[in-house]
Amino acid sequence: MTRYQHLATLLAQRIEQGLYQGGERLPSVRSLSAEHGVSISTVQQAYHLLEEKQLITPQPRSGYFVTPCKSKPPVPPITRPAQRPVEVTQWESVLELINSRLDEDTLQLGSGTPDTSQPTIKPLWKIISRLAQKQDPRMLNYDNIYGVPALREQVARMAIDSGCQLSPDDIVITTGCHEALSVSIRAVCQPGDIIAVESPTFHGTMQTLRGFGIKVIEIPTDSVTGISLEALELALEQWPIKAVIVVPNCNNPLGFIMPDARKRALLSMAQCFDIAIIEDDVYGELAYEYPRPLSIKSMDEDGRVLLCSSVSKVLAPGLRVGWVAPGRYLNRVLHLKYIGTGSTATQTQLAVAEFIRQGHYQPHLRKMRMHYQRNLDIFTHWVRHYFPCGICVSRPQGGFMMWIELPEAFDAMRLNRELRESHIQISVGSLFSASGKYRNCLRLNYSLAVTAQTERALAIVGAAVERAMVCCPPSASVAEVEGGASLKG
Amino acid sequence: MTRYQHLATLLAQRIEQGLYQGGERLPSVRSLSAEHGVSISTVQQAYHLLEEKQLITPQPRSGYFVTPCKSKPPVPPITRPAQRPVEVTQWESVLELINSRLDEDTLQLGSGTPDTSQPTIKPLWKIISRLAQKQDPRMLNYDNIYGVPALREQVARMAIDSGCQLSPDDIVITTGCHEALSVSIRAVCQPGDIIAVESPTFHGTMQTLRGFGIKVIEIPTDSVTGISLEALELALEQWPIKAVIVVPNCNNPLGFIMPDARKRALLSMAQCFDIAIIEDDVYGELAYEYPRPLSIKSMDEDGRVLLCSSVSKVLAPGLRVGWVAPGRYLNRVLHLKYIGTGSTATQTQLAVAEFIRQGHYQPHLRKMRMHYQRNLDIFTHWVRHYFPCGICVSRPQGGFMMWIELPEAFDAMRLNRELRESHIQISVGSLFSASGKYRNCLRLNYSLAVTAQTERALAIVGAAVERAMVCCPPSASVAEVEGGASLKG
Repeated sequence: MTRYQHLATLLAQRIEQGLYQGGERLPSVRSLSAEHGVSISTVQQAYHLLEEKQLITPQPRSGYFVTPCKSKPPVPPITRPAQRPVEVTQWESVLELINSRLDEDTLQLGSGTPDTSQPTIKPLWKIISRLAQKQDPRMLNYDNIYGVPALREQVARMAIDSGCQLSPDDIVITTGCHEALSVSIRAVCQPGDIIAVESPTFHGTMQTLRGFGIKVIEIPTDSVTGISLEALELALEQWPIKAVIVVPNCNNPLGFIMPDARKRALLSMAQCFDIAIIEDDVYGELAYEYPRPLSIKSMDEDGRVLLCSSVSKVLAPGLRVGWVAPGRYLNRVLHLKYIGTGSTATQTQLAVAEFIRQGHYQPHLRKMRMHYQRNLDIFTHWVRHYFPCGICVSRPQGGFMMWIELPEAFDAMRLNRELRESHIQISVGSLFSASGKYRNCLRLNYSLAVTAQTERALAIVGAAVERAMVCCPPSASVAEVEGGASLKG
Repeated sequence: MTRYQHLATLLAQRIEQGLYQGGERLPSVRSLSAEHGVSISTVQQAYHLLEEKQLITPQPRSGYFVTPCKSKPPVPPITRPAQRPVEVTQWESVLELINSRLDEDTLQLGSGTPDTSQPTIKPLWKIISRLAQKQDPRMLNYDNIYGVPALREQVARMAIDSGCQLSPDDIVITTGCHEALSVSIRAVCQPGDIIAVESPTFHGTMQTLRGFGIKVIEIPTDSVTGISLEALELALEQWPIKAVIVVPNCNNPLGFIMPDARKRALLSMAQCFDIAIIEDDVYGELAYEYPRPLSIKSMDEDGRVLLCSSVSKVLAPGLRVGWVAPGRYLNRVLHLKYIGTGSTATQTQLAVAEFIRQGHYQPHLRKMRMHYQRNLDIFTHWVRHYFPCGICVSRPQGGFMMWIELPEAFDAMRLNRELRESHIQISVGSLFSASGKYRNCLRLNYSLAVTAQTERALAIVGAAVERAMVCCPPSASVAEVEGGASLKG
């Protein structure tokens, strides 16, 4: 690498890291020359190179400036949802989203589907085939209501990584994490009760709350540190909240990992106000850091945390193998499990237990973590490259979901309709709010294989966003329509 | 066969069929001799043979009498449950029952488990193994929320046998019939609502109603013709009932098939009072008559019938493949399905669809019908042989459940505890009532292989019943305790 290339790389890194912000003037040629002990022409060559890459723009007589949108976009600011319990709506839009994930011609940038094509999953096929060849009679009969003992043993062992000391009898196997959440919610509250959630929150959880007639209070949530404990405390003082649902590790959709100290503080608050915590850990295993982050359940001393998870994001959602460690709510959870589905399909439970027992799980998990982390880098690069300036992008610490915030007046629903023509589907932000927030946000799934087709799709989304943003400049805010007719004359 | 043996067989048949009732005097030797054109001594030899078989008893100077309990026991009379909405209890006993079905040392006479050992089910193993070998990616991914299209097609075709014209899009696949019932119940009512049920009713349905805070009004039910329409009409006039749940074909636990005219009348009544009908058809395919009986759904014109079924009783419960045809409640059912389990395991759906498509289903079904019908004959014989007199026994027209009513003061719970020492488990009647009725009843599962061990078990149950009945003669009735203290000083 020549001197000027070296300098250009250094400057590009600083721009990437946000040390030089978009629109900011870069140091003069003379000062850089002095700082780095290189010639004037070396600095000029470096600046030319960056100009070619569109990272910087020259302004006559003023020097070089960082091309506005090529700097690292900021993370979304803390959310500000409505601070009162509301009822969840939006079912039609969710139904549309989950139906569209079946359209094979559509590129799924909006669904929560993991990549199930990696070779490390192959042993699962062999195991299923072997189980069938052995004609294991357990596969045909009603399962234990707790679930297959061999699987519960493996789940208890896996939980050690998140700091949990569980016995197999603390665990109830469910039909995916969906059922785990569903029985947990009903185990801790009745129709008409209020539950606090992070805002934004996974739309499946929202719809479950809607289905059981539970009101939702959305708590401001920071895209780096998670749910605002201050706002939660105010809500707990003001409303008879029964439980809080959180995704503290590799949050869906924001991607944060809540710092351990904040997890502990949340648990203390739950003890103080005597509420339950429903902890959705379905992405927790996919944290990019190693060892994986602690669960709140691991800090739980009086059984008030219901830990819900599944193999849907790590292995495969089609298996429908999930679980809940419901603490003191075990008996109620068993009843709700029984009346919901009777028992869970035996065969897939046996297959997953055997996959873990044979030692295929950890290598697969390592592979998937690396795969998604690499995809995150590439998708982030594409978003920066193809999307316009003035957006905020989350910095996921695990999983495969990216949250993009656009100017307030932006309509992601309309964007989604527009993209349908190009056979691309995104997740619109409003699905993640009970109070109709986040119409200007979208969630992108970066589990997809990195191909030219995916890059093209990102380019199409970026261009569509840019076109839409021309109509709604960053500063615009939605005009409030005054409601209520005057009573006068 | 000699003449006297022939005559003895003829007489034994008449006793079996109830033409000669228990305790009734048989024709004199002389008259039988004349009637059949045989010698006096042939008749005497035939009577001696029947005496040896304990079918008849000689009375000095009076002739021969049918040994009382060896005649065909009567069917249970129409039930008389409490005629007001009540809340369901009994979860602890149900949990005990479903946990005990996992104890391999215990002979399961109480569970609803079918026989999954017949050779006609073998192709299923091969299909599962093949699907895994082919590495069909559908097996790992989220399923369509309606369920796998190939399976819905097969279900729609199967439904033709019960008179239904359904399109695949009328059907939602569920995790067993349990989930079908669970979503159907919630689709038609809210917590606090009232639902009418047959009495007795399957305990899983009862517990589901309990779990959703729904009150139950139990309707008198005839063990031959089903729910009393007269009593139901009175209840509908008196209470704001939202729906009625029935198992009109091969009822669990009574075994009846409701006559078509009564099915039609029930539907008319539902139209008249504008309520929904939840029809549980999980045993319907196992009717001994051919073609199988019509479903109420087949008569439905305005989409008020929610037909629930599964392959759990015909094929195997461990597959957890069920479905609901929810009529006008489709959208609500989809929402409830989504929030309950997300989607159903894909692999078992594909396997079942392929099993039917390849033509294995009908031969298997025929085999199972014959198997259970044969088992019914043998179990009925054993019950008559080993159980004391004074009991009523249902006459199942399909499925594999037998309902036995003992004298009113009999305590089946105590019997169950006593049988635990002998590693035998029965289903106690009180699980089938919300109002604590049927403590004197039990349900026997006759799907088990007919072996010497099974016969011994029936003998042990019979002897235990006999011992218990000594303490509670048939005429005894539970003494009513007067409640409420006098207000007088």
